[in-house]
Amino acid sequence: MAIRTEFEFIDRVRLKYGLRRIGDDCAVLPKDRRWDTVITADLLVEGIDFRRAWTTPAKLGHRALAVSLSDVAAMGANPLWSMVSLGIPKVLWKHGFGEKFYEGWYALASCFGVELIGGDVSETPESLVIDSVVGGEAKKGHAVLRSGAKAGDLIFVTGSLGGARGGLQLLDRGKSVPRRRNARAAAIIERQTRPVPRIEEGKRLGTGKFASAMIDISDGLSSDLGHICRASGVGAKIYANKIPVDPNLAHLGLTDDEKLDFALNGGEDFELLFTVDPKKKLRMQKAMLGYPISYIGEITPDAGKIVLIGELGPKFLAAGGYRHFQALE
Amino acid sequence: MAIRTEFEFIDRVRLKYGLRRIGDDCAVLPKDRRWDTVITADLLVEGIDFRRAWTTPAKLGHRALAVSLSDVAAMGANPLWSMVSLGIPKVLWKHGFGEKFYEGWYALASCFGVELIGGDVSETPESLVIDSVVGGEAKKGHAVLRSGAKAGDLIFVTGSLGGARGGLQLLDRGKSVPRRRNARAAAIIERQTRPVPRIEEGKRLGTGKFASAMIDISDGLSSDLGHICRASGVGAKIYANKIPVDPNLAHLGLTDDEKLDFALNGGEDFELLFTVDPKKKLRMQKAMLGYPISYIGEITPDAGKIVLIGELGPKFLAAGGYRHFQALE
Repeated sequence: MAIRTEFEFIDRVRLKYGLRRIGDDCAVLPKDRRWDTVITADLLVEGIDFRRAWTTPAKLGHRALAVSLSDVAAMGANPLWSMVSLGIPKVLWKHGFGEKFYEGWYALASCFGVELIGGDVSETPESLVIDSVVGGEAKKGHAVLRSGAKAGDLIFVTGSLGGARGGLQLLDRGKSVPRRRNARAAAIIERQTRPVPRIEEGKRLGTGKFASAMIDISDGLSSDLGHICRASGVGAKIYANKIPVDPNLAHLGLTDDEKLDFALNGGEDFELLFTVDPKKKLRMQKAMLGYPISYIGEITPDAGKIVLIGELGPKFLAAGGYRHFQALE
Repeated sequence: MAIRTEFEFIDRVRLKYGLRRIGDDCAVLPKDRRWDTVITADLLVEGIDFRRAWTTPAKLGHRALAVSLSDVAAMGANPLWSMVSLGIPKVLWKHGFGEKFYEGWYALASCFGVELIGGDVSETPESLVIDSVVGGEAKKGHAVLRSGAKAGDLIFVTGSLGGARGGLQLLDRGKSVPRRRNARAAAIIERQTRPVPRIEEGKRLGTGKFASAMIDISDGLSSDLGHICRASGVGAKIYANKIPVDPNLAHLGLTDDEKLDFALNGGEDFELLFTVDPKKKLRMQKAMLGYPISYIGEITPDAGKIVLIGELGPKFLAAGGYRHFQALE
């Protein structure tokens, strides 16, 4: 049987070697009596995960760190340190790419007190490659996994969705970064090139033990809700009219269905998707005061089935979003 | 001022942001009251750090882990876990590269009880890229740094040097891996494609507090001794006739000077270079019984000066070995 997606590949390696720490946004390792360590790695490849023409070295530094911080946020943990491995084509090296990259990286790192402790630098023949590793800590047993969702839990999401996908569309059409004037266009381009990790939100949800399961929305709401459902052995129903579609998508002149599609399948918004026991709902909402969150549906006992309830009634929702090796057989 | 090498770049980033954990084979982080955590990252890029035609997916898996284990060994620490990020061109993905890679990776990992805890998989447009991260632990304060060498300390190296460079020459000449018959040729090709990390040696030197400074020989003896001297603010003199030149280099029909050059500047042998207080020499030798080590010289007070004492008298030794961005201005 051929392996189709990278998710399938990772699953197979995990099963073959009995790897019990793989399958969440971060691996969780025991640290001392009071704390666990969480660690994540994210590989960003030019031409696949980003295009250099769409961004700046400083924004790439920001983005590389942000995507890993977002994984730490999804565990409800506090980021502490990072290692960055940079593969740089010679021509970029000559133009001081590395130093500008670290300016953007460091500006974000200093917001969260993250320390650069290592990494590697190598030349690459053509494409820029970044591997971002971030470590953090959570109180022992407090790290929020994907596997804790129970039937009846309420499903919430922070912020708004679809903006990053909208930004991608603008960039793809050649709307270059410096020329933007329109505030909505600028906002969705920023969502794509300079995502904001929901560290504070994640920490509140984790330390308060409010979230039963959590994941960051990197692949897309439909995919990432699927990850939670698979890991937890549950299903979900979500309401189309409750999905917090990014208001700045208005700039693109999309239909409502298209906007909903961006919000469901766009990915890369790096919001947090989490489930909450209804008994904890009020306390959670109190703890999250000042941070926008939206209730979007409930966890059901129908393992693996995700239902989207729209104007025309319910329908099954397939996992959308980006896969590296989707087309392979 | 243009930055010339990656060492210079890393140094500058380190100074600019006051990064105190960068500059050794691993970063050292406090874990609990008794232990420190050590972490290292190594980026391997196809066409720069290896060629695919020279090796197999399984050997690449071995090598990617081995180079990081070697960094842990150089701290005198015990490896525990690893994260691997793999950037794979579509064509390799189709041919099951990932699974074969992990077979080789896992065979080495299981020798040392190293657990795969995470990583990432992405597509790349062309070149294979591997980022290998390994974490381990050392008793608190026992991790061996590059900065502990003192004038008068004796300099030792494990195993033999130059073999990996010799293997590279054979591979470069098109001596492909399966056709080798000659045992010496096979041995030096293996040194290049399937290096053995000196974990047990490093642990003995670290836990016994025998090594005042240590580094693994990845860049080349001349470069890596230079790293120790710079970090420790000392110099060194080494004796040409004491350098343990790999006996299998005999296969290549090199002159003695050429063999010495391979041993001094070849790099990638992943032996351990370490310094020892003369008062600890006998105890160290006892602890290392059964592991080949060679005395090659002494640390001197002449900061930054490395002298090679050969048949024709002493001469200053410049750092040789491979630099990614050597030629850039």
